[in-house]
Amino acid sequence: MTNFDPGEMLAVAREEALTGKAEGGVPIGAALFTVDGELLGRGHNRRVQDGDPSMHAETAAFRNAGRRRHYRDTIMVTTLSPCWYCSGLVRQFGISHVVIGEARTFSGGHDWLAEHGTGITIVDDPACLSLMTEFVREHPELWFEDIGEEA
Amino acid sequence: MTNFDPGEMLAVAREEALTGKAEGGVPIGAALFTVDGELLGRGHNRRVQDGDPSMHAETAAFRNAGRRRHYRDTIMVTTLSPCWYCSGLVRQFGISHVVIGEARTFSGGHDWLAEHGTGITIVDDPACLSLMTEFVREHPELWFEDIGEEA
Repeated sequence: MTNFDPGEMLAVAREEALTGKAEGGVPIGAALFTVDGELLGRGHNRRVQDGDPSMHAETAAFRNAGRRRHYRDTIMVTTLSPCWYCSGLVRQFGISHVVIGEARTFSGGHDWLAEHGTGITIVDDPACLSLMTEFVREHPELWFEDIGEEA
Repeated sequence: MTNFDPGEMLAVAREEALTGKAEGGVPIGAALFTVDGELLGRGHNRRVQDGDPSMHAETAAFRNAGRRRHYRDTIMVTTLSPCWYCSGLVRQFGISHVVIGEARTFSGGHDWLAEHGTGITIVDDPACLSLMTEFVREHPELWFEDIGEEA
């Protein structure tokens, strides 16, 4: 189960986050891989771009991976600790492992996932951290809207 | 907070479920209302129709309600107990109450939501129950795919 490179996978998620930023959206990116490193789907938050509050980075990557019979051989990589919504996705579909860019600007349900058997790797990546820190400072209203909290 | 009629709201979700069934999809429907009974969005599972595993009934209704600053004055109604994915949605966005058609064919995260302060109403509606019972019997592979389990 450790036949994967968290850094290489995170680079794909970070690329997605930067695309989201360039589009004026919430700069969070994610991707779904097999444990052997095959890319199944990648995506980024689409709240601003599509006016779609249901498309967080993780759900966008999951959608873009299309229909699958099961997810026990998959890894979700995301630039930010997954919120409860995205943590629920991981638990329901039995995604085996989550690689997280950073969990400092926001800490979602990754401890809960670990308690229920999901593997968790927190990279604590400086690029992911500065991307989110800057975004939260510059667009607090958009950030709080994205997680359903009031500023 | 009890200024709403669970039966009237559930009728909308059930209509969505029947539309999904008619389309050959997973027959689960949902809708998001304000606590005063205003319909914000409605939808049904889109796995088959759009090849989209991320669109459960609840996430479809949430998407169709569009962007909102908060959800503390909203009620989600769904024909079936929400899975972990959809329960995570409810918790993350602070949806105040969930009305559930039935929780016999499947029981997701509604107890967990109740522990965290979400109001839960289980209607135990015979029409919702027979709709799901029949579906699970006739299309077990599709049902298990929809919840990420192996038959």
